[in-house]
Amino acid sequence: MTTVDINSDLGEAFGAWTCGDDSALLGIVTSANVACGFHAGDPDVMADTFALARDSGVAVGAHPGYADLQGFGRRRIPMSEREIERLVAYQIGAAQAVAALAGHRITHVKAHGALANVASAERGVADAVARAIRAVDRDLVHLAIALTEQMAAGERAGLRVVAEVFADRGYAEDGQLVRRGLPGAMIDDPDAAALRALRMVEDQAVVTVGGRRLPTPVESICVHGDGPHAVDAARRIRAQLAAAGVAIAPFVRG
Amino acid sequence: MTTVDINSDLGEAFGAWTCGDDSALLGIVTSANVACGFHAGDPDVMADTFALARDSGVAVGAHPGYADLQGFGRRRIPMSEREIERLVAYQIGAAQAVAALAGHRITHVKAHGALANVASAERGVADAVARAIRAVDRDLVHLAIALTEQMAAGERAGLRVVAEVFADRGYAEDGQLVRRGLPGAMIDDPDAAALRALRMVEDQAVVTVGGRRLPTPVESICVHGDGPHAVDAARRIRAQLAAAGVAIAPFVRG
Amino acid sequence: MTTVDINSDLGEAFGAWTCGDDSALLGIVTSANVACGFHAGDPDVMADTFALARDSGVAVGAHPGYADLQGFGRRRIPMSEREIERLVAYQIGAAQAVAALAGHRITHVKAHGALANVASAERGVADAVARAIRAVDRDLVHLAIALTEQMAAGERAGLRVVAEVFADRGYAEDGQLVRRGLPGAMIDDPDAAALRALRMVEDQAVVTVGGRRLPTPVESICVHGDGPHAVDAARRIRAQLAAAGVAIAPFVRG
Amino acid sequence: MTTVDINSDLGEAFGAWTCGDDSALLGIVTSANVACGFHAGDPDVMADTFALARDSGVAVGAHPGYADLQGFGRRRIPMSEREIERLVAYQIGAAQAVAALAGHRITHVKAHGALANVASAERGVADAVARAIRAVDRDLVHLAIALTEQMAAGERAGLRVVAEVFADRGYAEDGQLVRRGLPGAMIDDPDAAALRALRMVEDQAVVTVGGRRLPTPVESICVHGDGPHAVDAARRIRAQLAAAGVAIAPFVRG
Repeated sequence: MTTVDINSDLGEAFGAWTCGDDSALLGIVTSANVACGFHAGDPDVMADTFALARDSGVAVGAHPGYADLQGFGRRRIPMSEREIERLVAYQIGAAQAVAALAGHRITHVKAHGALANVASAERGVADAVARAIRAVDRDLVHLAIALTEQMAAGERAGLRVVAEVFADRGYAEDGQLVRRGLPGAMIDDPDAAALRALRMVEDQAVVTVGGRRLPTPVESICVHGDGPHAVDAARRIRAQLAAAGVAIAPFVRG
Repeated sequence: MTTVDINSDLGEAFGAWTCGDDSALLGIVTSANVACGFHAGDPDVMADTFALARDSGVAVGAHPGYADLQGFGRRRIPMSEREIERLVAYQIGAAQAVAALAGHRITHVKAHGALANVASAERGVADAVARAIRAVDRDLVHLAIALTEQMAAGERAGLRVVAEVFADRGYAEDGQLVRRGLPGAMIDDPDAAALRALRMVEDQAVVTVGGRRLPTPVESICVHGDGPHAVDAARRIRAQLAAAGVAIAPFVRG
Repeated sequence: MTTVDINSDLGEAFGAWTCGDDSALLGIVTSANVACGFHAGDPDVMADTFALARDSGVAVGAHPGYADLQGFGRRRIPMSEREIERLVAYQIGAAQAVAALAGHRITHVKAHGALANVASAERGVADAVARAIRAVDRDLVHLAIALTEQMAAGERAGLRVVAEVFADRGYAEDGQLVRRGLPGAMIDDPDAAALRALRMVEDQAVVTVGGRRLPTPVESICVHGDGPHAVDAARRIRAQLAAAGVAIAPFVRG
Repeated sequence: MTTVDINSDLGEAFGAWTCGDDSALLGIVTSANVACGFHAGDPDVMADTFALARDSGVAVGAHPGYADLQGFGRRRIPMSEREIERLVAYQIGAAQAVAALAGHRITHVKAHGALANVASAERGVADAVARAIRAVDRDLVHLAIALTEQMAAGERAGLRVVAEVFADRGYAEDGQLVRRGLPGAMIDDPDAAALRALRMVEDQAVVTVGGRRLPTPVESICVHGDGPHAVDAARRIRAQLAAAGVAIAPFVRG
C-alpha cells in the first residue's frame, strides 16, 4: 500500500501575535515543521506547539529560516555559506531542546521561506543546510522540496532525504515551483489540489504547467495553514488520499 | 592535591561589535561560559568561540540570559517560571548544536547576569533554570554561584552542581555578593584578589566583608574579561593558585 | 453641548502578523494611538495606518511603549527615567516623520501598556514621559489616564493634557484601574459599558467598584480593538453617546 | 577662500558595546552622521552622541541604514522603494526627536552602508531616500556620495545636496568607489590620504585609479573612526587642509 506523509508549517505565531489555525491542522497533518524563533516563533510558542503536536501524535521538525521577523523569513538576507550553516545549526538545536522540555522529539528539518528557495536553487547553500543538519544529528531526516538542489545536498551529506511536493502549487518545466504572482503559480480550487496530490502520490511524479511528467519520489505533501480556506483545503487533500486507499503516516515513526 | 577550575564569560561580542579579549582569556581559564545570542553572541560569534576554546583545550558551557541585547542581560525581564524554563532550554540547545558544528561539546550551563541574580535569590526561578538544564541533558553540569538558591535547585533537579566563587567580589554576611556600587563590592587590587582566590580554595569557604567564614565547596573561580586590567588580574589569580600547588583543571573532563 | 473624543490603539500589527480590525475601528473612533515599532508596528504598518486614519478623518497620536516586541509592551523593562525620556522621544519622532510621509500629522501622545501603567503610578516616570513629549514638540497633547500621575506630570510639563477613561474597565477606590484578572476589572456587557461611558461623560467623573464618585475631566473614551466583540462594543459606545446628544469629535482639530 | 566640511559616522555603539573613538573624532570633524538604531545606535547612544556633538560645536545628521544590527547595515535587505522611504523617514524622525531632547538639531541626512551603496547605484532607491528626506523636512541637507545616483536624486527632490568624497578610498573609472577587497580600494598611508583630500578639494574633482580626473563639487571629506589608526589619519587630513589654507567648517551653519 502506498503511504504518504502530510506536512505543514506550524508554530508561526510570535509573542502576542497569532498565525494560522494550528489546532485544526494538527488533526490533519502527520508532520509539523515548527518555526524556531528567527522568522517566527519564540520559546513559548515553540514549546506550546511541540506539546500540542505530541498530544496529537504528530511528528515535529525544526523549520529554520533567515533571522528576519519583520520579513517572516521571506527575504533573502545576504549570508555566506558558513554563516548559513551556523544559522541553521543554532535553530535546530534550539528546537531540539525546547521539544525535549515539552516532551517531544525533533525528527526532521525543513528549511523555511527564502532560505528554502535559495537552497533549492543554489548547491552551495543547499550543502550548507545539509551540513548543519548532519553536524547536529545525522539521524535527522532532511525534508526537502522535490526536484531541487536540496535533494542532492541531503544525499551528499549522508542524510535520509524525504521529498515533498505541493498540492496547491504549479511546477515549471524545470521542476521548480512557479513563482508566486506568476500565472499558474497557485491551484486555488481545493478539489483540484486534492486530486493533484493524489495523482502525484500515485504517479510518484509532478506534472508541470506545460504538461510534462517529472518523476520524483513523493513522500510528503505540504499543505498550508494560512489563508481563509487553507484548513478546509488540507482536509480535502487528506480525505482524497484516504479515499483512494493511500495510507497517511509520518515518514519517521516515533 | 587540591584542584580548581577557572571560568570566565566569553563570546560576548555581537555582529560587528567586539567584547573583551577572548583569545587571552582562553590561555588562562579552564572553562568558558559562552553567550547564546539572547543577551550577547550570535551564531557566528558562538561558533568562533567554541572553535577557539576547543583549540585551547578549554571546556565550554552555555551561558543563557534574558532576551535583552540592548541591556546585555543585566535587566530583569518579567517572566513566569515556565517562560524561564523555555528561555533557558532554547539557549542550551542552540549552544549544543553550534558547538557540535564547531567540533566542541557543551558540558555545563551557567546563568548570566540578571537571570543569575534572580535565580540566586528566588527558589522558583532557580528551579526553573535547573529543570531546563535537566530536560535538555541531565549530564550537563550546573555551574552555580556558591551559597545561593542555584545550588539547592541544581541538587533538587538531580544535576551535578559545581560551586563558583568570585575572586574580585565582596560577600555580604548572608553569603550573597555585595551589590555592585555598594562599598566592598569590588576587590580592585589584583594581588589581593589572587590571594583571596587561593584562600577560598584552600579553606573551601568564602569570607564576608564582616569577617565571617562561610563554608562552601569552591570548585571554580570566576574571572572577568572586560575592564582594562581584567586579563592581567585573571593571569595573576591563576599564577597564585599554581604557585601554591593547586591544580588548575576543568571540572568536566573531555 | 458636551463633546467627547473616542480613542483606540491602532497599528498594532508587525510584519506579516495582523492585530485587530483597524479599518472597522477607524469608522468609530476620532483619535487613533499608533504603535511606534517598539512593542508593535513597523515603518510600513505605521505608514499604512496613518494613511488610513487620514482618509477616515481620524486624528493620530504616537503610542510609545517599552522595546519589547515579544511581550507586546506589557512587561516593565527596568529603565532609568532618563532612558525612558529617550525611549519616548525616539518613538514620537519616528511617528511624526512617518506620519508626514503618509500625509498625516501627529497631534497627541499616549503611553502604551506597561509604560502607561508605570507612568500612572510613579511620578518620576510620568515626568520623564511628559518631558520627552515637551522636548519633541510642546504643542503635542498628552492623552493621559484620568486620575493618575500622568495628568499632573503633563501639567507640570506645560502640556495640554486630555483625560481618558475606559468604558469597559472597573475603577478601584483610589481611582486606579482594577488590575486585569481581579474581580471587577472588566465590564464585559457592551451595553453596560456603553451606558457607563455615557454616565462618565455626563457626570465628568468615574464611579468606583465600591460606588464612590471620583470627579475628573472626561475628554476621551478609550475603546479596544482586540477580542472577538471589541468592534461591536466600540460601536455601541459611540451610538449610545450620540443618541444622548453627546458630540463625538477629536480633541485636536485638524 | 575654499571651505570644506569634514564628516564622520558616529554613535555606532549599541547597548553595552562600544564602537570607535567618538570623543576624539568630535575634535576633528565638523559634521557627524549619527546612527539611528537600525544598524547601530540606540536612543541612549544617540542622545549621548548628540549632546557631545553639541558641546563640540559639531553639526549632526541622521544616518539611516537597513534594519540589521547583526550585519551593521552592511547587507542589502530586500525592500521595495516604498518600504525604503518609510525606513528612512522613521529613522530621520527618531533622530530629530532625540536630538531635540539632547539640545541639538538634525541638519542633514546621509545614508549608511549597504543602503548608501544601493542608493548610489540605483536611481529608484536613490529617489526613495531623497523623497523620505523631503517628506520629513525639506530643509534637511542630503549629504551624498559624489558622482552617484544619490546626487541627482537629491536634486530631483528639490533638496540641497552636498557632495562628499573619501580621502582613503580609490575611485574606479566610472567615478564609483572601488569595492573593498579589490586592489586600489584603500589608501592606507595617512599622508597620501591627506594629500589626496587636499587635491580633491582644490581641484573640485576626484582622480580615478586609472588617472582620470572627474570633476565634481567636493564639499565634504568623509573620514573614518574605526580601525587602529583612523583617528590619527583623520587628524592629518584636517591638518593638511588647514595648512593649505582651506577653511574647515560645517556645510550647515547653526
